[in-house]
Amino acid sequence: MVKVGVVGYGVIGQRLADGVTCQKDMELSGIADVAPTLAIRALKEKGMPYDLYLGMPENLPQFEALDIPVSGTMEELIQKCDVLLDAASAGVGAKNKELYAKYNKKAIFQGGEKNSVADVFFHGYANYEKGLNKQFLKLTSCNTTGLIRSVDCLDREFGIEKVAITIIRRVADPGDYHRGLTNALQIDKAPSHQAVDLMTIMPHVDATGILVHTPVTHGHIITVVATPKKKISKEEALAAFSKHDRIRVVRIADGFLGNASLFRYARDLGNPRGDMYEIALFEESIVASGNDIMYAINIPQESVTIPETMDAIRAAMGMETDRLKAVAETNKYLGMGKWK
Amino acid sequence: MVKVGVVGYGVIGQRLADGVTCQKDMELSGIADVAPTLAIRALKEKGMPYDLYLGMPENLPQFEALDIPVSGTMEELIQKCDVLLDAASAGVGAKNKELYAKYNKKAIFQGGEKNSVADVFFHGYANYEKGLNKQFLKLTSCNTTGLIRSVDCLDREFGIEKVAITIIRRVADPGDYHRGLTNALQIDKAPSHQAVDLMTIMPHVDATGILVHTPVTHGHIITVVATPKKKISKEEALAAFSKHDRIRVVRIADGFLGNASLFRYARDLGNPRGDMYEIALFEESIVASGNDIMYAINIPQESVTIPETMDAIRAAMGMETDRLKAVAETNKYLGMGKWK
Amino acid sequence: MVKVGVVGYGVIGQRLADGVTCQKDMELSGIADVAPTLAIRALKEKGMPYDLYLGMPENLPQFEALDIPVSGTMEELIQKCDVLLDAASAGVGAKNKELYAKYNKKAIFQGGEKNSVADVFFHGYANYEKGLNKQFLKLTSCNTTGLIRSVDCLDREFGIEKVAITIIRRVADPGDYHRGLTNALQIDKAPSHQAVDLMTIMPHVDATGILVHTPVTHGHIITVVATPKKKISKEEALAAFSKHDRIRVVRIADGFLGNASLFRYARDLGNPRGDMYEIALFEESIVASGNDIMYAINIPQESVTIPETMDAIRAAMGMETDRLKAVAETNKYLGMGKWK
Amino acid sequence: MVKVGVVGYGVIGQRLADGVTCQKDMELSGIADVAPTLAIRALKEKGMPYDLYLGMPENLPQFEALDIPVSGTMEELIQKCDVLLDAASAGVGAKNKELYAKYNKKAIFQGGEKNSVADVFFHGYANYEKGLNKQFLKLTSCNTTGLIRSVDCLDREFGIEKVAITIIRRVADPGDYHRGLTNALQIDKAPSHQAVDLMTIMPHVDATGILVHTPVTHGHIITVVATPKKKISKEEALAAFSKHDRIRVVRIADGFLGNASLFRYARDLGNPRGDMYEIALFEESIVASGNDIMYAINIPQESVTIPETMDAIRAAMGMETDRLKAVAETNKYLGMGKWK
Repeated sequence: MVKVGVVGYGVIGQRLADGVTCQKDMELSGIADVAPTLAIRALKEKGMPYDLYLGMPENLPQFEALDIPVSGTMEELIQKCDVLLDAASAGVGAKNKELYAKYNKKAIFQGGEKNSVADVFFHGYANYEKGLNKQFLKLTSCNTTGLIRSVDCLDREFGIEKVAITIIRRVADPGDYHRGLTNALQIDKAPSHQAVDLMTIMPHVDATGILVHTPVTHGHIITVVATPKKKISKEEALAAFSKHDRIRVVRIADGFLGNASLFRYARDLGNPRGDMYEIALFEESIVASGNDIMYAINIPQESVTIPETMDAIRAAMGMETDRLKAVAETNKYLGMGKWK
Repeated sequence: MVKVGVVGYGVIGQRLADGVTCQKDMELSGIADVAPTLAIRALKEKGMPYDLYLGMPENLPQFEALDIPVSGTMEELIQKCDVLLDAASAGVGAKNKELYAKYNKKAIFQGGEKNSVADVFFHGYANYEKGLNKQFLKLTSCNTTGLIRSVDCLDREFGIEKVAITIIRRVADPGDYHRGLTNALQIDKAPSHQAVDLMTIMPHVDATGILVHTPVTHGHIITVVATPKKKISKEEALAAFSKHDRIRVVRIADGFLGNASLFRYARDLGNPRGDMYEIALFEESIVASGNDIMYAINIPQESVTIPETMDAIRAAMGMETDRLKAVAETNKYLGMGKWK
Repeated sequence: MVKVGVVGYGVIGQRLADGVTCQKDMELSGIADVAPTLAIRALKEKGMPYDLYLGMPENLPQFEALDIPVSGTMEELIQKCDVLLDAASAGVGAKNKELYAKYNKKAIFQGGEKNSVADVFFHGYANYEKGLNKQFLKLTSCNTTGLIRSVDCLDREFGIEKVAITIIRRVADPGDYHRGLTNALQIDKAPSHQAVDLMTIMPHVDATGILVHTPVTHGHIITVVATPKKKISKEEALAAFSKHDRIRVVRIADGFLGNASLFRYARDLGNPRGDMYEIALFEESIVASGNDIMYAINIPQESVTIPETMDAIRAAMGMETDRLKAVAETNKYLGMGKWK
Repeated sequence: MVKVGVVGYGVIGQRLADGVTCQKDMELSGIADVAPTLAIRALKEKGMPYDLYLGMPENLPQFEALDIPVSGTMEELIQKCDVLLDAASAGVGAKNKELYAKYNKKAIFQGGEKNSVADVFFHGYANYEKGLNKQFLKLTSCNTTGLIRSVDCLDREFGIEKVAITIIRRVADPGDYHRGLTNALQIDKAPSHQAVDLMTIMPHVDATGILVHTPVTHGHIITVVATPKKKISKEEALAAFSKHDRIRVVRIADGFLGNASLFRYARDLGNPRGDMYEIALFEESIVASGNDIMYAINIPQESVTIPETMDAIRAAMGMETDRLKAVAETNKYLGMGKWK
């Protein structure tokens, strides 16, 4: 059993911890954070299913005052683990890395860190082999993770030369008060980092894109104009997407009208936290543009990187050398693809 | 075991079904709906934990085409049950009532129906006794249910003569596309129906209020200016609220900044669908206004009426004649009050 | 002086009336509407700068009760005019057309009507000549009007073969309460009608696209992936856009962060109603995608069709046969291009 | 002619400058700012109707690079003026005050500054006399200004002892990108500063209140529960409000459904920038609560303080000693009350 620790118990960290406990070949050694946040208070109210370690031991009195049991320091947690999933605030991971290195542990960083923090920039489906037995991996961000799922899917089946993407980005997560946008669309300088990151992971594909922030919280929508080596039909593209275990093909006609429908559906499924691991692909969005194929996907930003992070553990720990076997293992434990 | 059926498997119906399955002295006989909505598709994807009956048997082919098992017609479900929880679209309940009457079944309607549909307009804490052994009960709406919890709490402890409320209403539920508001506040003609309804349930209290719709989905906030028989201090009010098992006292200072914080917290608790049954009372909102006391509460509109509906089953079926024992039974099975 | 009437004094109708009064070679004979809406009340409060005619004479008592002067019936207005600008609710224009035909008047319909209502589907820059001396013209919708400005601009300079667009649509206008979206993105079945309409106006261009509704009110943003006959550089595209009098090139670096910045800027300019006639093109959005060029534009939905409607009057009335002279005349009177 | 300078040409500063130019007994000597913001660019595009002075002369090259004419330094502007309207960013006014004092000029600060910056905390209707001939005045904030208009109106007619308010606050202005809220209501610690400020201006009234931020931009809505010395009827309250030249009584039934309707109406009126100086009072919101009267008002946050700032100039400069004559002068020049 691979022993895993989660550092930073925020939006992503909580979901990573839950994801690890679903993997039958891993065990969660504990989670670490620095202050009694609402997420930590919820952990306590649930009866402390995970052991808590402190990133700032000087804050112990704050936890004691709330009767929140603390199992030790983050440094102690690190020593107990084989691999750490770092979901600390952007930039803090680079500091934490010194501790992981000190104890010669492996670590997997989330997309908020700089690429230089890691030996390899990783995506479970697109470049699994590059992560094999590496010490430090960095995941792609939520949008890039979902985007690459779809582009890699087409690329492996048909060959993709070029993509031009438009990211309609949700600006905050449900419950965020530290960031937000009110009645405004905001455009970023192009090209968006997601296009650049895609090229790092899939260097044989030319990518560019424009990102527009929108005042919603329940998922990003990305449109993709993909140029294949030779023309592919709408039906061929749909068939390829439909086979993928991390792409849920949905129909507008069935009531999947946008990101909020998918958020509701995941809650109705009874998924933990109302989360969904799959990206959704809107069937009626697929259109031909000359030889290009255009389509739209939905990215559940809070949870989409969890499967690829589980893949990353498998790669870093050398638990499985075969790409397809590795992702299949993750999918099985997370229940992905069973809707079909 | 009291046999319960749920008619209408939408936002409220789904939660009623889940709520019934938590009650150890009840069993869910099945749910009924008319079309393969997303909620029904989710039920199927979960493996049909509840038996499904059809309100419109002519739609059976739609369900068969999707391989959704159907156990019979709504009329058959009704015959199997002791009591029906009607959560059909507003107005449909009045039609369904004819069927409940035909088979001499009890039924409990939600707040969207007209008061005339029922023998008694019901609230578990405020007028439990009036519902005892009645055939048709109607619950108060989500806002009124939560509002009355707080006013009844103060009234039983101190005596309340008058309330003036301001309802800052969420305009849609997460996932709603059939209604919404964009960058606008909308005011309704006063007095709001919630104030009028409060007076129906608590006729000794004078109530009025103004309602303003706001473009959010995660909960209503209500401010209450309550006039007690004699001045009560902030501390006395807080102590009363803190004892109530359906009122969760929270602090802005702890990070509960508004309705979205509570929605996130409920998800982080791992509650089914990320729901919360309690209203929240913001501790730092309590202020004195002369002899009056003013405070603000948060209403989780999707789930707040579930406990009072369970109370209504207990009353209608005569399962428990004592008000406090009845609500305590509901609270125990729903896990309410255990956060304290 | 060409005599112009405006039928329907809503969001578009009000702006058409204002636009006509700016044209030195036209005069506004009056406006027609059916009820004392807020727009009509505002007209009265301003002292009735425009004569008002009634589309439903039976509603006269409503106007009299409010002391709103009425100059006659819509049918009387029609007889006084050379050309009618029909901005009635979608679908009503088709009925009004019978009256225009009865009196052998010319009429120009807005984008909400079906194409079949008109002899020609019109855009001032792209197909001015087709509208010359025709009786019934229909304008493109707001998004299509702005989109075509940019595509026609590139097409005339470089030749464009194909476009794939993503429309990030504002879902309502400021002040709308009859439609809205709350915390949700909504996707439409592709291809969007704007792409189809573009092909009707510019039949030599292949076009497709995806439309996503967003909960904002201050302007649409469209991203365009355009395939030119031969590769064009970012600088060449920028130079072409910069020369166009109805395209305002703006920089994110200067503070034009999105649709809301442009709305504020137009108000700060003191433009009537805080309107802007130009589309904006974000300079930093222009990127190459292989041989394709990608860019983003902002569409001020309330006012963007006004200039092309003035062009349509010139075409229908045969006031000017030369395309460039006609649009230059409109631009001069509307003050377009003078920011440069 | 009183010579007035405006320091800080942002949302408020622009409107103050426009307001001053409407006053026939004042002249605008110029405006000062520190950087070529969008507001300054708009001023240039309009042809520099106001002379521009620099608060940070070291930034002159930025203006020169954009061909924006600069008339001198802020210190030079100050010397030319009798009174300065300080609308600089919150906190900067306190620094600017040193310059005003150095040249022995009068100055009027906006609500963002601390009360200690001024000799008197001022409201044109409620305490005009206190501002007479004072050197430094501070205006109440937008919400407080509008709130006091309504409370002072009732107080002078009937006597008011106590108010409990709920502020449903717009969280950002149209065009703001530096602050915002997405799908969330946010509650502040009570009592809100507006209630506290009201008591400073009207010390004989007891006031408290709760403030909730909402994700909209077009105006605050405040509900007020006012306790009069003796019961007043809805009709009496309405009559009092209807007489007030800065309170526009509107009807929901006429289409004034909320803050966005009023924003649209002001644009349709052709008001500069689409602004409205009056607060709106919703007629159908007035209800009795025992002896108390409850009502709701709408506050156009960008422009509501302009009239009271003009009053403040009259008071500080001793232009008019009589309260009612002073406000009437402002109202006449701003065209207030003429809708009746």
